[in-house]
Amino acid sequence: MPAQMHQHVTDEMRRCSEECQRCHNVCLETIHHCLHMGGKHADPHHIRLMADCVQICQTSADFMRRGSDLHPHTCRACSIVCDRCAQDCAAMSEDPEMKTCADQCRKCADSCRKMAA
Amino acid sequence: MPAQMHQHVTDEMRRCSEECQRCHNVCLETIHHCLHMGGKHADPHHIRLMADCVQICQTSADFMRRGSDLHPHTCRACSIVCDRCAQDCAAMSEDPEMKTCADQCRKCADSCRKMAA
Amino acid sequence: MPAQMHQHVTDEMRRCSEECQRCHNVCLETIHHCLHMGGKHADPHHIRLMADCVQICQTSADFMRRGSDLHPHTCRACSIVCDRCAQDCAAMSEDPEMKTCADQCRKCADSCRKMAA
Amino acid sequence: MPAQMHQHVTDEMRRCSEECQRCHNVCLETIHHCLHMGGKHADPHHIRLMADCVQICQTSADFMRRGSDLHPHTCRACSIVCDRCAQDCAAMSEDPEMKTCADQCRKCADSCRKMAA
Repeated sequence: MPAQMHQHVTDEMRRCSEECQRCHNVCLETIHHCLHMGGKHADPHHIRLMADCVQICQTSADFMRRGSDLHPHTCRACSIVCDRCAQDCAAMSEDPEMKTCADQCRKCADSCRKMAA
Repeated sequence: MPAQMHQHVTDEMRRCSEECQRCHNVCLETIHHCLHMGGKHADPHHIRLMADCVQICQTSADFMRRGSDLHPHTCRACSIVCDRCAQDCAAMSEDPEMKTCADQCRKCADSCRKMAA
Repeated sequence: MPAQMHQHVTDEMRRCSEECQRCHNVCLETIHHCLHMGGKHADPHHIRLMADCVQICQTSADFMRRGSDLHPHTCRACSIVCDRCAQDCAAMSEDPEMKTCADQCRKCADSCRKMAA
Repeated sequence: MPAQMHQHVTDEMRRCSEECQRCHNVCLETIHHCLHMGGKHADPHHIRLMADCVQICQTSADFMRRGSDLHPHTCRACSIVCDRCAQDCAAMSEDPEMKTCADQCRKCADSCRKMAA
């Protein structure tokens, strides 16, 4: 879109928004994988944390996509949730899907942390 | 539901979740009212702020409804967005719909602030 | 709110919207219950179906709350998903939480079916 | 992710899901553009239709990303909403942003129609 029309949505915001959507997507797919695996993968607290991550990532992405000046507040919440989700997933990183999910959560957390600063 | 089964969702969390959903609903209806009124009601920044409020209220409500221990972080973001939305709506409080919306945003902001503490 | 201002949101739409939100809330809480119970409660297809129900109920509720004339289409999808979720939950209705969830899904399905007609 | 683990999420579903997310994003940005433009761009029914499109696109995307077998029902609703949004935007296609939005809505409608069949 013409740059002058959305000058409130900076390139940095759009990139962070895309990172959040990727994290939303990976977590959404990984929840189903975890439920199929069972055991520690399907621990209620882990599934809940991933569901939290799915939702705050979309919210954070949309605040930036709308060009909202309040996006640092949703980015802050998102970076905290993603950090926690990354830790939980990394603890099962012998499973390549969990490693992929942990990596994306970490990237999203880092990106949101910068936007929240 | 039986209390022992969802001991992680306290009554306080459920009440705050309901406040957030009421705020989500009022803002969603008021956006359409503002667009019909036009003028300052339909100012792009005001509409965007209300859209922000609609979304973070639902996210905050759902974190509590899931019993997430990370709800203070979404409640914090929600209280800030609701405070801003309350201010914006209160500036048009000669219109009873805007007054209703401002009042609900204020209540939700207060409730979320306590949960974030 | 003053009736003349939201004449597009009928009482019937608002009631159905509330039914959808109740269903959203009950399913969201019941997912966590199911994960704690494990076994057939935590079957991946059951959890996914409940997650589907949580999301389409909110979408359907919001379409009506916005007064959208396209709400019959989201109500149709919602009634189908809720019917399926009600069946799945009713199959575990010896558990009172599942019975509560099945009952609310059935009510929401009925309400949405009328709006979709 | 390893194909065998998410065999329920076909490549076709993932592509349609991406189309829906692109449509979600374009509509979300275009709403703000329309509010800034004012006049027919900011007509309440047009803004509401775009808000409908933003929400059903995300819901449809997520059903497919979860691998839900109920995705044809959300895809059907999504294709109808996107078709209507495409029409509305195309009526202002002298504005390149509206043309971009109309084109993406049309692509998403076509993709969802195939998935709903």
